[in-house]
Amino acid sequence: MASPPTPADKFSFGLWTVGWTARDPFGEATRSDLDAVEAVNRLAELGAYGITFHDDDLIPFGSDDAAREHHISRFRKALEETGLVVPMVTTNLFTHPIFKDGGFTSNDRDVRRFALRKVLRNIDLAAELGADTFVMWGGREGAEYDAAKDIRAALDRYREAVNLLAQYVIDQGYGLKFAIEPKPNEPRGDILLPTVGHALAFINELDHPELVGLNPEVGHEQMAGLNYMHGIAQALWAGKLFHLDLNGQRGIKYDQDLVFGHGDLMNAFALVDLLENGGPQGGPAYTGPRHFDYKPSRTEDYSGVWASAAANMRTYLLLKERAAAFRADPEVQEALAASKVTELSTPTLNPGETYSDLLADRSAFEDLDVDAVAGRGFGFVRLNQLAVEHLLGAR
Amino acid sequence: MASPPTPADKFSFGLWTVGWTARDPFGEATRSDLDAVEAVNRLAELGAYGITFHDDDLIPFGSDDAAREHHISRFRKALEETGLVVPMVTTNLFTHPIFKDGGFTSNDRDVRRFALRKVLRNIDLAAELGADTFVMWGGREGAEYDAAKDIRAALDRYREAVNLLAQYVIDQGYGLKFAIEPKPNEPRGDILLPTVGHALAFINELDHPELVGLNPEVGHEQMAGLNYMHGIAQALWAGKLFHLDLNGQRGIKYDQDLVFGHGDLMNAFALVDLLENGGPQGGPAYTGPRHFDYKPSRTEDYSGVWASAAANMRTYLLLKERAAAFRADPEVQEALAASKVTELSTPTLNPGETYSDLLADRSAFEDLDVDAVAGRGFGFVRLNQLAVEHLLGAR
Amino acid sequence: MASPPTPADKFSFGLWTVGWTARDPFGEATRSDLDAVEAVNRLAELGAYGITFHDDDLIPFGSDDAAREHHISRFRKALEETGLVVPMVTTNLFTHPIFKDGGFTSNDRDVRRFALRKVLRNIDLAAELGADTFVMWGGREGAEYDAAKDIRAALDRYREAVNLLAQYVIDQGYGLKFAIEPKPNEPRGDILLPTVGHALAFINELDHPELVGLNPEVGHEQMAGLNYMHGIAQALWAGKLFHLDLNGQRGIKYDQDLVFGHGDLMNAFALVDLLENGGPQGGPAYTGPRHFDYKPSRTEDYSGVWASAAANMRTYLLLKERAAAFRADPEVQEALAASKVTELSTPTLNPGETYSDLLADRSAFEDLDVDAVAGRGFGFVRLNQLAVEHLLGAR
Amino acid sequence: MASPPTPADKFSFGLWTVGWTARDPFGEATRSDLDAVEAVNRLAELGAYGITFHDDDLIPFGSDDAAREHHISRFRKALEETGLVVPMVTTNLFTHPIFKDGGFTSNDRDVRRFALRKVLRNIDLAAELGADTFVMWGGREGAEYDAAKDIRAALDRYREAVNLLAQYVIDQGYGLKFAIEPKPNEPRGDILLPTVGHALAFINELDHPELVGLNPEVGHEQMAGLNYMHGIAQALWAGKLFHLDLNGQRGIKYDQDLVFGHGDLMNAFALVDLLENGGPQGGPAYTGPRHFDYKPSRTEDYSGVWASAAANMRTYLLLKERAAAFRADPEVQEALAASKVTELSTPTLNPGETYSDLLADRSAFEDLDVDAVAGRGFGFVRLNQLAVEHLLGAR
Repeated sequence: MASPPTPADKFSFGLWTVGWTARDPFGEATRSDLDAVEAVNRLAELGAYGITFHDDDLIPFGSDDAAREHHISRFRKALEETGLVVPMVTTNLFTHPIFKDGGFTSNDRDVRRFALRKVLRNIDLAAELGADTFVMWGGREGAEYDAAKDIRAALDRYREAVNLLAQYVIDQGYGLKFAIEPKPNEPRGDILLPTVGHALAFINELDHPELVGLNPEVGHEQMAGLNYMHGIAQALWAGKLFHLDLNGQRGIKYDQDLVFGHGDLMNAFALVDLLENGGPQGGPAYTGPRHFDYKPSRTEDYSGVWASAAANMRTYLLLKERAAAFRADPEVQEALAASKVTELSTPTLNPGETYSDLLADRSAFEDLDVDAVAGRGFGFVRLNQLAVEHLLGAR
Repeated sequence: MASPPTPADKFSFGLWTVGWTARDPFGEATRSDLDAVEAVNRLAELGAYGITFHDDDLIPFGSDDAAREHHISRFRKALEETGLVVPMVTTNLFTHPIFKDGGFTSNDRDVRRFALRKVLRNIDLAAELGADTFVMWGGREGAEYDAAKDIRAALDRYREAVNLLAQYVIDQGYGLKFAIEPKPNEPRGDILLPTVGHALAFINELDHPELVGLNPEVGHEQMAGLNYMHGIAQALWAGKLFHLDLNGQRGIKYDQDLVFGHGDLMNAFALVDLLENGGPQGGPAYTGPRHFDYKPSRTEDYSGVWASAAANMRTYLLLKERAAAFRADPEVQEALAASKVTELSTPTLNPGETYSDLLADRSAFEDLDVDAVAGRGFGFVRLNQLAVEHLLGAR
Repeated sequence: MASPPTPADKFSFGLWTVGWTARDPFGEATRSDLDAVEAVNRLAELGAYGITFHDDDLIPFGSDDAAREHHISRFRKALEETGLVVPMVTTNLFTHPIFKDGGFTSNDRDVRRFALRKVLRNIDLAAELGADTFVMWGGREGAEYDAAKDIRAALDRYREAVNLLAQYVIDQGYGLKFAIEPKPNEPRGDILLPTVGHALAFINELDHPELVGLNPEVGHEQMAGLNYMHGIAQALWAGKLFHLDLNGQRGIKYDQDLVFGHGDLMNAFALVDLLENGGPQGGPAYTGPRHFDYKPSRTEDYSGVWASAAANMRTYLLLKERAAAFRADPEVQEALAASKVTELSTPTLNPGETYSDLLADRSAFEDLDVDAVAGRGFGFVRLNQLAVEHLLGAR
Repeated sequence: MASPPTPADKFSFGLWTVGWTARDPFGEATRSDLDAVEAVNRLAELGAYGITFHDDDLIPFGSDDAAREHHISRFRKALEETGLVVPMVTTNLFTHPIFKDGGFTSNDRDVRRFALRKVLRNIDLAAELGADTFVMWGGREGAEYDAAKDIRAALDRYREAVNLLAQYVIDQGYGLKFAIEPKPNEPRGDILLPTVGHALAFINELDHPELVGLNPEVGHEQMAGLNYMHGIAQALWAGKLFHLDLNGQRGIKYDQDLVFGHGDLMNAFALVDLLENGGPQGGPAYTGPRHFDYKPSRTEDYSGVWASAAANMRTYLLLKERAAAFRADPEVQEALAASKVTELSTPTLNPGETYSDLLADRSAFEDLDVDAVAGRGFGFVRLNQLAVEHLLGAR
C-alpha cells in the first residue's frame, strides 16, 4: 500500500536533519559529516521534493567570501542536476557562543546588531535560491532566570528585528514570507514565543503582520503537552500556516526529533487528516511543503539515516491513505453526524438573527428542556474507535 | 514583617474558592456549604477588597426569579455592610451536564444558544453589581478525541459568541470588559485557547478586540510547563492584562489550585516583582485586583479555609516586600547592569538608523571581534542568586 | 479482522468503570446510576470474562447488614446466571471524607484503624466470591505539602498495614494475593509509591513479599512520563505482575482513563506484544485477566458506555493480531537480529568466565577496535518503522 | 546570615560541573577547558570538602599509560596540597560513540564487555584515591523504540554487570559501595531504572544488595514530576541513601542542572530539612557528602562559574538555617501536633495487638463516629504557610 514518494508529494528535509552527526548533550558525534551535495542526491533518489538549510549548515560560520561562493555553487549545481528545490531557508542564531543569550533579544546590543546582519545576509541568499519561506526559530531567545530577562523589552527588540527584516524584504521586492517557529524550552529554560498561540499573538503586533506566519513543529507543541493538530488548526484559522515541521515526540521531555509518526501516532493521523482532508471541512487545508525536521537517532549509521528519511515519507503517505479511507467510510460519516461534528459549522445564530432575537426566543432558554438536551449522548468514543480502527487498517 | 492586608491592597477572592466543599474526582465533599453572606463577612474581616462569583455560585442553577432576587439581595446587602466590592463576575458553563461538550462551542447548537442566553443574563447582573470585568473560562470548550471536534469551526463559534456578547455590552452602555481565561486541559483532554498566547491570538480575530483581554491563572500556564511571569509579561506587552488569577501549582499535573506561593515560589516572586515593580522597567505594571482563584485543600475544615484565605494575602504581601528590597539593593542594580538586563531596553538600531545604515556599519559585522563578544559572561547565575537570597530574606 | 471477544480472552472490567456516572471536578454526573446486575449482564453479553469492584461500588458505604447481604446476593446471582467471574476485588479508601488524608497512612490513627477494619471485611468478601487478587490503590496515601507528612513514618504505617493483611490472608487460608497499584499524583499532590518501581521496592520490605505484587495502570505510569511497557517488563522481571489495569492516557496531565489504545497507541502495541508474545522472548508473559480500568467519557450516554466497553476489547484483540503478525514477519526477525535485540539475551560473560578471565581478555579492551565497534549502526529506526507499519496493518 | 562554607559542611563537586565547557545540543562550547588542578584549587578556596569525577574527566578517553599516570599524579598532588578529598568516583559510559546503545545493556555484546573493563579499571582508581562511593549513572542504558530493547534481557545484563563488579570489590577488599543514579530520560527516550523506586527494586535482585545503594539527583526525579524529598525519604527508609546529587530543575523538561535551590525552592527546603533535621524524626538523616551535580549556565564565563559554585553552598547553608529555625519554632511544633504529623509515628496497632484484637475493637469500626472523625480538619495549609514564612525568613 501507499506508492513511493514523488516530488508531487512535496516532501522536504532540512540539510541539518540527515546531516546531523549525532552529537548530543552527553555524547560525541557518532557519524561523520555529510556533504551537502550527497544529501541533495540521496534525498532526490528517495523521492523528496525539496531541501532546506540554515546558513551555517551550508556555509560554515566564518567562511570567507570565496569559500562561501564555493559552497553555494556546488549546492546549486546539485539542485539543478536533481531538480530538488529550496522552498525554505533559515538562519542559525544559536550554535555560535556569541548567541548564548539569544540573537534578536540578547541583552548584549552588539550581539543583536550582529544577529540582524547575519539574517539580512541570509535573506539575500534565500531570495537568490528561490525560497518562498524564511523560517525564524528563536531557540536562544529566552532565559533560565526570571530576573535575567526583561520580557517586555525582549518582545520590543524581537518586534524591532522582525519589522526591520520585513521592511527589507518588501524594499528588495523579494517574494519571501517569514515563518516563526515556536518552542517552549530547550536549549533555554523558557523560550520567548513558546507556543503557536504566543507566536500568533506576537505577529499581530508587527508592522507587516501579513508577511509573517508560523512554522509549527510537532514536537515543540507536544513538549508543552499541547495538541499539535489543534495548534495547526488555530494557525490555519488565523491564515498563518506558512510552513510546518513534521517529526515525532513521545511526551513532555527533551526535544526528541523522532521520525514523523514515531511519537503520538493518533495525533499524527489527525494532523494528516486535517492537512489533506481539512478534517470535516474538506481539503486540502495546506498545500505547502511537507517538511521533516527530525534527527536520525544517534544509534544509526548512514544506512540508518537514509532508512529514517524514507520512513518519514512512507509514514506520511500511509496516514494519508488511512485518513482518506476514514473520511470515505459511510459509517464514519454517519458517526460524525450522530456526534454533531458537522453541526458545529452551523452558526449559533440563525441568518440575520440578533441578540435581541435570541433573547426573545423562549425555546432557547426559558422553554428549553434542559434535562433532555443534557441527556443526549455525543457518541465520541465510538467515533474515536472508528478512527483507531481506520488507523490500524482494520476496516 | 508585612502589615496585615487592607482593601487598598485590592485582594479579591472567588466565592467558589472559600466556598469549595472539597468534592474531587475521587471523593465526596468534606465541608458543608458556605453561605455567600458568611463568605462576604469573613473575607471583609480578613482585609479583602472584593469578591467575585459565577452565576451559579450565588444563584443555584434553575432558581426561579424569586429565589434569584432573594439570593442577590442578601448578597448585595452584605456587600454594602462590609464595603466589599464585586470587581469581576463570571458564568458557569461547565458544571451542568448540558455543557458536557462545552458552551459556546458545543457540537450541539441548542446548547450553544442556551449558553449565550445564560451569559447574557449574567452580564446584566455583572453590570448591575458594578463589576468592571467579565471573565470567560471555557473549561469545557474542547475535546478528548481529535475527530470529535472541528477546531476551526469551534473557533468560528467561539468568535461568534464573543462578538455577540461584546456588541451587547456596547449597546447596553455597560462599562464591562471581557477577560478570557486560558487553560490547557482538565476537565477536557485538550481545551481550546490553551495558553495566554492562544487566547491573545484569538482576541485579534474579534470584532471588538479592544473590549477583550485576558485573565491568566498561575496554575493553568504552569500545567503546560510555561513560565507564568513570562505569560503575564506578554499579556502586559499586548495591553491585555485585564485581570488575573493567583494560586499555586506544583508542576505539570492536575489543576491543584493551591494557595498563592505554595507552588513555584521563585516564579511567584518574579510575578509580584513584575506586577508591583514592573520588573526592571518600574511599576506598578498592573493595578487591577489581585484575585485569588484557589481551593482550600480537601483536608481542611473551615478554620483551615480561613487560614488559607489569609495565607494567600500574607504571602503576596511578603513577596511584595522582598521584591521591593530586591529592586532597592545597590548590589542588585549593579548586577542587573553587569548582566545587561537594562541594556535590552535600548533599541538595537541607533536613533534614525535604517537597515541600510546597519548594513554599512562594518563594526556591527565585518569588523566585530566575534570571539571577544562571545566571551563576555552575562553573570546571570549571580543575579539569580541575589534574587534567591532576597526571597529568603537573607540580605 | 479480529474475532469478537469471548471469556477465553479473559477480559474483565471494574464495576466502577461502566458504572461511572461522570461526575468530574468541574461537573455534575451526566448519567444515572448503573445497577450492578445490569452491568454484569451487559458485560457478559459483550464477551467479557470477569467483573471487579470496590466494596462501596457494590455495597454503599454505611449499608447495614441486611442491605449488604441483599446487594451481594443479587450480584452473585447475576454472576451465576452469566458465568462472569470476579477475579479481583479492591477497597475504597478514598471517597468518604474520613479518608481525606489517606487510609493506611492517615496522620489520624483513628482513620488508620478504621481503614484496616474496612479492608479486612472486604478481604472476607473477596475470598467468598472466589477472587484471586486483592488490589490496593492508595490514592489518598500522600500529601500536598512537604511538611505535612513524615514520609518514613508513612511507609512504616503502610508496611504495618500490609503485613497485618497478609498475615490475615495466610491465617484464613485464603487463596488471595495482593496487588499494589501505583500512581504519582491526583487526587493528592504527591502519592506514596508513585510508580511501579517504588511499589516494587516497598514490597521488598514486607514480611510476606511473596504474597504481594503489582497492579500497574497504563495511565498512572504515563502520568509520570514513564514507559508503561518498560514498567510492566520490570514487574515481570521481578515476578510481580499479579494484575494490570488497561486504559488510555494522552500524556502528562490529569488522569484521563480513556479506552485502551485511545492514548499512546504505539506503547499499547508494544505492551500487547509483551503480554502476548513476551516481546522477543516468546510468550505469553502474562496469563491473568486483561482488566480495563477506564472511564466512559462524560459526553456519552449509556449506548456510548457499552460502545466504549466493547472498544477496549476490540482494540486489544486488534493489537494482538498486529503483534502476532509483527513477530511472524521474516523481515522483522531479520531486523531484530540486525539490531542485535536478540543478542542481549546472551550473557556478557562466557560460560564459566570470571572477572579475572575478562580482565585477561585483551580482545575485550586493549585490542578492541573501538572505532569499528562504535561505527556499527543498530538499525533501530528501521525496526521501529516495521513496527509502525505492522501497527498500521500496512504489511 | 549563614557562615561561609567549610570542609566540615562536606560539600563536594563533580569535576565535570565547574569544568563543563557549555556545549549543548544546539550550541558549541562557550568556555575553554578547565584544568583539573585549577578546579581543585578553586573549590578548596571556596570552602569545599571534596571533588568527584568520571574517569574521562580526569584522563581523556584513549590516553596511554604514561598520560594516565601524569593526569592522576598532578591531580593527587593538588588534593594533597589543598586537603580536598575524593569521596566518590564514577565512570563515563555515555560520551564515546561506542556507548551509543548503552554500556552494561548495549545490544552489542562487545560493547558490554568493553564497558565492564572500563569500569573495573576505574574501580581500581577509585579505591586508590580513597573514595567510599562508586556511582553508576546508566544514562545510555535505555531505548527510544519499544521494539529495540528487550527490557527483561537488559535487566538481566544490568544485574550480571553489577554482580560482577560487586564481587570484584569484595574480593579486592576495597571499601567501596556502589550508588545507582536513576534518570527517566535524556539522552535516551526512556532510560532503564528511571526513578529512585525502580533502582531500589533492581537492587533487591542483586547478589550483594548490601553493597549497592542510590545516588538520587534532584532534577532527575523532578523530570518525572516526582517529589525529590519523598524519593530521598523512601531511599532512607530502605537504608539506601549512599550519596546524592544536588541541583535545580524547573519542572518537567530537559535536564537543566541549575544551581541547588534555583529550581523548586520549597522542595529544596524540605529536602534540607529532611537531611539535616530528619524532618519530624530528628536528625541528621544523612551524613555523607552534600554533592553538587550541576552545570554553570552556558551564558557564564569563569567568574560566573565560580560564583555559581559558591551559590550552591550558600543556598544550602541558608536553607539549613531556615530549616533549623522552622523546627525550633514553638508555633511550628504546635502546628505539627495539630496536624497529627507526629501521630503518624505511633503504630496503628496497640502494643501487642493482633488483627483479632482489632477485629474485636468495636470502637475502631462499628462504634466509631465516622462523621465526627471525617470532620476533623488537618490544618495542613496553615502548617505549610509556616514553612513558607520560615523559608522567606519572615518569622
